[in-house]
Amino acid sequence: MTSSIKLPPVGLIGPGAMGLGITRALLRRGFPVHVRDLDPARNALAQAAGAVVESSPAAVAAKAGIVISVVVDAAQTDEVCFGADGIVAGLQKGGVVMVCSTVAPTYMSGLADRLAGHALLAVDAPISGGPARAESGTMSMMIAGSDEALELCADVLAAMSDKRFVIGPTPGQGSTMKLVNNLLAGIHNAAAAEAMSIGLKAGLDANTIYDVVMASSGASWMFGDRMRRWIDHDDRVAAALPILTKDVGLALEMAKGMQFPLPVGASAHQVFLGTLALGHALDDDNSLIHYYRAMTGVELP
Amino acid sequence: MTSSIKLPPVGLIGPGAMGLGITRALLRRGFPVHVRDLDPARNALAQAAGAVVESSPAAVAAKAGIVISVVVDAAQTDEVCFGADGIVAGLQKGGVVMVCSTVAPTYMSGLADRLAGHALLAVDAPISGGPARAESGTMSMMIAGSDEALELCADVLAAMSDKRFVIGPTPGQGSTMKLVNNLLAGIHNAAAAEAMSIGLKAGLDANTIYDVVMASSGASWMFGDRMRRWIDHDDRVAAALPILTKDVGLALEMAKGMQFPLPVGASAHQVFLGTLALGHALDDDNSLIHYYRAMTGVELP
Repeated sequence: MTSSIKLPPVGLIGPGAMGLGITRALLRRGFPVHVRDLDPARNALAQAAGAVVESSPAAVAAKAGIVISVVVDAAQTDEVCFGADGIVAGLQKGGVVMVCSTVAPTYMSGLADRLAGHALLAVDAPISGGPARAESGTMSMMIAGSDEALELCADVLAAMSDKRFVIGPTPGQGSTMKLVNNLLAGIHNAAAAEAMSIGLKAGLDANTIYDVVMASSGASWMFGDRMRRWIDHDDRVAAALPILTKDVGLALEMAKGMQFPLPVGASAHQVFLGTLALGHALDDDNSLIHYYRAMTGVELP
Repeated sequence: MTSSIKLPPVGLIGPGAMGLGITRALLRRGFPVHVRDLDPARNALAQAAGAVVESSPAAVAAKAGIVISVVVDAAQTDEVCFGADGIVAGLQKGGVVMVCSTVAPTYMSGLADRLAGHALLAVDAPISGGPARAESGTMSMMIAGSDEALELCADVLAAMSDKRFVIGPTPGQGSTMKLVNNLLAGIHNAAAAEAMSIGLKAGLDANTIYDVVMASSGASWMFGDRMRRWIDHDDRVAAALPILTKDVGLALEMAKGMQFPLPVGASAHQVFLGTLALGHALDDDNSLIHYYRAMTGVELP
């Protein structure tokens, strides 16, 4: 992308861990980016990266035809879209709201209908991969939206990720796929803590467990990532415990609405809740091992 | 290995799916192999591969200083070792019994003590990876035994696997590691069925689910292997459902003995038992999806 090509401005609400990465990825590809966060510190970081900070979501939307929302949950998404000075108040007819947060599929499909009532288009585009991959444009995206909406966003989506999966034409389908993936991630994370802790209690060495599991049929991406950082006493909070707790909870809610039992997911969710109850809300979600430690006194290396 | 080097004979009880693969791997490396199976058809296959079929485990043991047992479970292992015409009746003092079956760690440590009473050595060496990797010598092995026993078996172990993990000096430790791994494999397999089936019920496409999960944080070795074969309608029985059901059950038994809760493993085991109850005992363990189908009527592709 040469600098002589003038790309249209893009709006982004919520330059947090993932949102700031996306902001940098868009700027690097030449898109002017207008941002807004509730936290002045996040606005300052986005400004330092080259974005223009606006006074409200409406002000962001007034500058761009596409506004990306990367906030925490459905409640924040609703406020950002429909609150006073929300996106809807500023976006021109035919504009696109791209929702990257993990929300319930029924919420997302309803949001798309409500936006359509304002002559706005919705793209359901949950993301996965963490801040580093957001910044490098290599996070995965699970995308659902009308042909018209996806066409309008094509260049922006291409700048955001080289790992884009179009799930279907209906907003909500991307969120469904995200919940299916994160149901697995949540189960695997609880399973990793469960297996590692009983192995330690039985007298095995943590690194031996890690090496054997990752070379055998017990391997998972979550085991590899979370247990590696845990064994290495890496105290960075790459993913705070409440986030995946919420996502597994959303998967259980979706399933309940479909009268669909998720016995394994439900038991994993209990491990997440127990670990939160033990006081690990500010810790990384590799802290699930404390759920087992609290009961069994297993010594951690 | 040139054919001019004369290697000592090795005994193998149970040339089944894994045992025949091991037999072939040993023969290829130049070890004469003496075998015995209860099933004449398995003996014939071993003979066709170049092994010498003997009339009993005792007769096998009379020809070799190391006897590998690759039978189904602890009951068969006990019969093979201590039954009439068992290994103990034929093996010279100082000989080694290598147990590759997945058994309870307490059973394995007790077996080692009982063999020691006959002046015999035990190697606890559970295996993982399936028949093809057994034959190519690339299965993984989780090995526990005294320095003396492991030294006696060094060449045989090297011929059996290029992925050997020495877990510790005490028989039972290899079995513990195997149960920790297979606890994970069992949970991941149930989670794969759970996530795939709710995704299908929610209207997603099976191949889309597969591709997104395997590129995202929900990836696991089990999801990749079992769901690939399931989507492809591959009807080979690579691993019959009762085997992993038994292994997860052994992990739960081990944990119960340690007063250690495995909430996620326990819920996964219920999915295995439910699928067996539905009549899938002769099917591959990727049939867990029928547990969810039976309740929800989810259409399978």
